[in-house]
Amino acid sequence: MLITESVLRNFTTNIFLAMGCSTKHAALAADVLLLADLRGIDSHGVARLTGYVRLWEKQRINPKPNIRVVHETPTTATIDGDAGLGLVIAPFAMKVAIEKAEKYGSGWVSVRNSNHFGIAGYHALMAVEKDMIGFAMTNASPLVAPTFSNERLLGTNPMCYAFPAGKYPPLIVDMATSAAANGKLEIAQRLNKQVPEGWIQDKEGNYTTDPHALKTGGSLLPLGSDKEHGSHKGFGLSATVDILSAVLSGANYGPWVPPFVAFLEPPSDPVGKGIGHFVGAMRVDGFRPVDEFKADMDNWISRFKSASTIDPNQKVIIPGEPELEAQTDRQRNGIPLVDVVAYELNELAGKLGVKPLNF
Amino acid sequence: MLITESVLRNFTTNIFLAMGCSTKHAALAADVLLLADLRGIDSHGVARLTGYVRLWEKQRINPKPNIRVVHETPTTATIDGDAGLGLVIAPFAMKVAIEKAEKYGSGWVSVRNSNHFGIAGYHALMAVEKDMIGFAMTNASPLVAPTFSNERLLGTNPMCYAFPAGKYPPLIVDMATSAAANGKLEIAQRLNKQVPEGWIQDKEGNYTTDPHALKTGGSLLPLGSDKEHGSHKGFGLSATVDILSAVLSGANYGPWVPPFVAFLEPPSDPVGKGIGHFVGAMRVDGFRPVDEFKADMDNWISRFKSASTIDPNQKVIIPGEPELEAQTDRQRNGIPLVDVVAYELNELAGKLGVKPLNF
Repeated sequence: MLITESVLRNFTTNIFLAMGCSTKHAALAADVLLLADLRGIDSHGVARLTGYVRLWEKQRINPKPNIRVVHETPTTATIDGDAGLGLVIAPFAMKVAIEKAEKYGSGWVSVRNSNHFGIAGYHALMAVEKDMIGFAMTNASPLVAPTFSNERLLGTNPMCYAFPAGKYPPLIVDMATSAAANGKLEIAQRLNKQVPEGWIQDKEGNYTTDPHALKTGGSLLPLGSDKEHGSHKGFGLSATVDILSAVLSGANYGPWVPPFVAFLEPPSDPVGKGIGHFVGAMRVDGFRPVDEFKADMDNWISRFKSASTIDPNQKVIIPGEPELEAQTDRQRNGIPLVDVVAYELNELAGKLGVKPLNF
Repeated sequence: MLITESVLRNFTTNIFLAMGCSTKHAALAADVLLLADLRGIDSHGVARLTGYVRLWEKQRINPKPNIRVVHETPTTATIDGDAGLGLVIAPFAMKVAIEKAEKYGSGWVSVRNSNHFGIAGYHALMAVEKDMIGFAMTNASPLVAPTFSNERLLGTNPMCYAFPAGKYPPLIVDMATSAAANGKLEIAQRLNKQVPEGWIQDKEGNYTTDPHALKTGGSLLPLGSDKEHGSHKGFGLSATVDILSAVLSGANYGPWVPPFVAFLEPPSDPVGKGIGHFVGAMRVDGFRPVDEFKADMDNWISRFKSASTIDPNQKVIIPGEPELEAQTDRQRNGIPLVDVVAYELNELAGKLGVKPLNF
């Protein structure tokens, strides 16, 4: 079924209000989730609303956090999110980074004591709107094994780099550092469909195509899949995200990251507070005039769009292009919700006394 | 054959002096190359000396560059390398980044009009020595095709992130953003050995195991190898390196990057100057006290080193560990040179009137 953006936005805002969030925080958290749904990243949109509510029910999410800077220099800061929604903590952190960049050229913020922050792209794009280059990353529940191991020690730890362009939309690299994002695996699980070799391994460390292998001790593989194809690089990128987000801020890292799902308890021996993020902003005009940069970005994009292709029907895709196409389509035609998500949302509405979605 | 570090260092310094470099620049350039040889990254050490000399003979390397900051804010800068050796320009850029970080918490420098800068790790480690986190990346001659294309539009564009630790050595992620580094392919070419599927494609875009396929229009593949395994992520990372290094600084990007090999002419329609780098430094104590960070780094490393393994004889490798082992060994026992490289080096010595290596 298709739901218009404004209806889904109001509904989502009301759920956050029912959790006890302030009006401002509820609207912001809804905005972050809605952008994921609009951009076709369905795994990170309202489909996760039930997950956030369950964490709140377990008192693992604080709806009224006192988000504050606990350490800083002119261009760096550490923020304690007071166990609030990552959906509001990460934009707060990015605002601090942008303010520092406005004054000094760049700004970098590491965040502890947070929760899942939605799509990295939302936060990085805040910088792009100011003609800055945006960076956003986060660690996440351990699902990925490092090269040579069968132990889940890392999250799918996404990294995002966003660059303003001129006549073209921003170029946005927003990627899990695992071979496959967890969202893609979840889709295969729902459809009971085998996954390609190289996405996951079983408990013993053998490749498997069974999408349910994580339930029996399996793990996701780093980008590169195996050593021969560079999985140590995916591992290294994931380690980078974990260190910048959590070792630098004093959050939990590696296998100590608290799980997003409420039915799993956080480790009883935490090494830090909550989960961690890392965001940054650099003014383009800290390096060269914005119009010159944008002209070269347009030339870059235009050259890659017109690259010679292997299949005449499949052009080179500029990072961020498919998400923008989805956004244009969904803003016009509505956001598709799968039945199980729609059902869950109205169940949630019933529980929290929120007006249900009509369908 | 094995050569001691000091002998090879003197020899290399003398070659750079014969090119007309200043005493300081010659010693620095030799230091960058030697660190690659010591750390076992043989493709980026003295084996490339002949390549640098050939570029100098073609007047594409300026031995007496006027390296200067052309644009800056308190924490950002663009440097023009005046067509000098990247081996001296990148350390200059990193010094500027470190000075800015000392004053303001972080420093970021984009570089244009440069040449090959050796191993990224050398530059990133300069920051680590000051208890900072180091970043270094560079674009490079186009050898890699973006996902869905059979056209060589990107270099192997390495990125490096380096983090200080406490009782453990620094954790260093230093990686090409292609499935396989060009150095690995060169080894297979020398041995006439088939390469794994997923490293390269032929002119038509089909996987091939022929290590010579690049000579007949083939290309290296991005990290991830194919779309199903995330090659669009390797493409995105490579694009990020290209944009930060070249679009931001005004260097050549994508297919316009001048080739490292002197027998290929640079494109006749340049979009910028030389090749580009991007380096950065962030003070650890801009985020939290250094001792706390290092204690958590040690805990991170120790936990990953003791991870459960698939093969009892193959432990998890911490990024940067194998290079450090090589360095310890080679500082003690000497640096191995393959015959063809040793022969080339003495040929070079003869041509430039430098005292040859004795073997």
